[in-house]
Amino acid sequence: MIPAFRRLNGGLEGAQGPVQPPECGERVSMLLAEIADVGTDRFRGGYARHGFDRADLQLRAWFTEQAERRGLAVYTDRNGNLWAWWGEPGPGAVATGSHLDSVPGGGAFDGPLGVVSALAAVDVLRARDFVPARPIAVVVFAEEEGGRFGVPCLGSRLATGAIGPDTARGLRDPDGVSLAEAARAAGLNPAHLGRDDAALSGLRCFVELHVEQGRQLDLLPERTPVAVATSILAHGRWRLTFRGQGNHAGTTAVADRRDPMIPASSTVLAARRALAGTDARATVGRLVPTPGGTNVIPSSVDVWLDARAPSTPDTRKLVDEIVAAAREASAAEGCAVEVREESYGDAVTFDAALRDELAGLLGGVPALPTGAGHDAGILAARVPTAMLFVRNPTGVSHAPEEHAEPDDCAAGVAALASVLEHLAS
Amino acid sequence: MIPAFRRLNGGLEGAQGPVQPPECGERVSMLLAEIADVGTDRFRGGYARHGFDRADLQLRAWFTEQAERRGLAVYTDRNGNLWAWWGEPGPGAVATGSHLDSVPGGGAFDGPLGVVSALAAVDVLRARDFVPARPIAVVVFAEEEGGRFGVPCLGSRLATGAIGPDTARGLRDPDGVSLAEAARAAGLNPAHLGRDDAALSGLRCFVELHVEQGRQLDLLPERTPVAVATSILAHGRWRLTFRGQGNHAGTTAVADRRDPMIPASSTVLAARRALAGTDARATVGRLVPTPGGTNVIPSSVDVWLDARAPSTPDTRKLVDEIVAAAREASAAEGCAVEVREESYGDAVTFDAALRDELAGLLGGVPALPTGAGHDAGILAARVPTAMLFVRNPTGVSHAPEEHAEPDDCAAGVAALASVLEHLAS
Repeated sequence: MIPAFRRLNGGLEGAQGPVQPPECGERVSMLLAEIADVGTDRFRGGYARHGFDRADLQLRAWFTEQAERRGLAVYTDRNGNLWAWWGEPGPGAVATGSHLDSVPGGGAFDGPLGVVSALAAVDVLRARDFVPARPIAVVVFAEEEGGRFGVPCLGSRLATGAIGPDTARGLRDPDGVSLAEAARAAGLNPAHLGRDDAALSGLRCFVELHVEQGRQLDLLPERTPVAVATSILAHGRWRLTFRGQGNHAGTTAVADRRDPMIPASSTVLAARRALAGTDARATVGRLVPTPGGTNVIPSSVDVWLDARAPSTPDTRKLVDEIVAAAREASAAEGCAVEVREESYGDAVTFDAALRDELAGLLGGVPALPTGAGHDAGILAARVPTAMLFVRNPTGVSHAPEEHAEPDDCAAGVAALASVLEHLAS
Repeated sequence: MIPAFRRLNGGLEGAQGPVQPPECGERVSMLLAEIADVGTDRFRGGYARHGFDRADLQLRAWFTEQAERRGLAVYTDRNGNLWAWWGEPGPGAVATGSHLDSVPGGGAFDGPLGVVSALAAVDVLRARDFVPARPIAVVVFAEEEGGRFGVPCLGSRLATGAIGPDTARGLRDPDGVSLAEAARAAGLNPAHLGRDDAALSGLRCFVELHVEQGRQLDLLPERTPVAVATSILAHGRWRLTFRGQGNHAGTTAVADRRDPMIPASSTVLAARRALAGTDARATVGRLVPTPGGTNVIPSSVDVWLDARAPSTPDTRKLVDEIVAAAREASAAEGCAVEVREESYGDAVTFDAALRDELAGLLGGVPALPTGAGHDAGILAARVPTAMLFVRNPTGVSHAPEEHAEPDDCAAGVAALASVLEHLAS
């Protein structure tokens, strides 16, 4: 069921045998290079790697092989998250990791950098003959981007109970395939999806390394390649469905039109206007007219709104303002609009003690907020959680141009190795 | 290569044997019912039948069988148009017909009504023991809606030379398949695509019956079910590609955004504003952000503009105004916009003598203009051409709700039979 990665990547064949003591930057580059061909998106550029799709299954097989070559025991939890254990799983464990899926047309670093840096950090610690006093787990969370089933951090939300299993099983991808069907096809039992106290209750902490999605580190005067995270904006996804009357583009006079593309477009602009004077974010990156013919007035238009602000009241106020504009524009066109919240997460403040402990351990690196959601933000409700950010020289993310310099990636691995050594001693 | 329609539609099996003298309305309903299951669009409702796709090939096979059961000799011309001949092909022939493809999510009548009415009219004339003095052809033109390759009336444009074969061969569908590849897969030789004087020079005239796309007939006080056409608006399709910087929806501050969805949305609204005080049409029914992720600022957005007006200068002025607004909105967002004309057709005035001759023959039916493009509008440049419209009680077209009452369809068949009898005597 899971395609053999090795057949698709000759490079791995030549890399057989014991893992050599690492050069951290090279090790990260080499690991990312091994998966560089998996799930490339030939239409949009970058990568299309989505929960339980072919590319994702290849990446899971590759991760399993990489972990097993390091002597780690890999298992898949009830929600499709992968756990690779250094040492016997048990209480007080230290977990690190990230995700391997991408947004559509995504970059090479968002997600995979945290996974390969974790593997490389294990190599570093092994090369130092470190023997962990506490078990260490490298975790790959499922469908972090929500690129297939619409709900971000799906694997960690399921594990923590932030999304219920019935809701999750019913999520559908754009082709109509349910998460239950996709999970079954990937070898999971969809009846077992849901809150996983067994997996989380044994964790002492979780530390996620991630490429920075923004240029805060790059613009800091101290020019450090690594930071710790302070907080994540409150954020959610709303789907606005505008319904009008599908009709002929050439024969329908303006007065007779009920064209849902008009209020949909007004809503995109209203979302931008609502940001004036705030530090909030509102984005429409996905918009689908139905039926989508050039010579057809759509019968409906789906607009996905991504909105984020420092607090839940701020976010609700922002969304309320945009939805009010959507309703007004719909009424003016004789259309209706239906609004559904597809996901929501409150603002996250990472464990202050752990954050300060790690920042100090790393020589006083900066502590930065982010507007991006992460599995670490979901786990923070259950487990003391921290994040390490690696500098991004352009700040671009969720795009093929996303980048981190090898030296900065090496600094990230070194930092993560120090953190794991410290926490697992 | 062409799937056997019969296997997919048991109803046809039971209809074997000689065609019985017709009840026109029932005959139309029966023929439409035979193809009611072909190419249904389970996501968008209605039909997805596009040039040389599986549904289209099934419809072609079905038409061929229907024509052959009526003793008509069917051949496929160099451009994939089907010709079913009653009598030996030769000079002075009278052609009728329409198309079988649909817009995405289209209705059951736009196109097929003209084809099945032609078959039913042959039945009517046969039942009257009419023997045509001139050959009669029932034509099915390929890819009239441009739903797959973007250029409407592709089969008739190729035949008349309104599009060059090199341009046509290079057209690609949304999956990247070229027309040349699709034509080859359907058994055509793509090297033979192009102007087809042999097919057109023998025609005395072409008469296309079509469901009305609008409510002009329904709103006329005289309540007649059939009209003749006077003219078609000038119309074309333009693709506007807005390019910005793909980025993360949560981390990218407003000031740092170059989001192409903003000028794309402004352009949709500008197109609507540009119609004020005119009898023009401008529609954006297709809009595709790339990559199209909810949590991703798009790197580009493609907007297809369908614009129509009574004359070429009016249409150019309308498009220029919309493009100017697009450029201004792009510049304000730090984006670029590229504009390509994908198709264009000047206004068409149908042959006045033929129009008046047919209107008189039918008892003085009304003569109406339309905003919809048709193969008849393309052929009008080469052949005396007329159209018959059948009443549409809601005016809705290019949508699943598109409808014509059986009695009106019967009146359409009766009218077409009279026209063919008159012209082929």
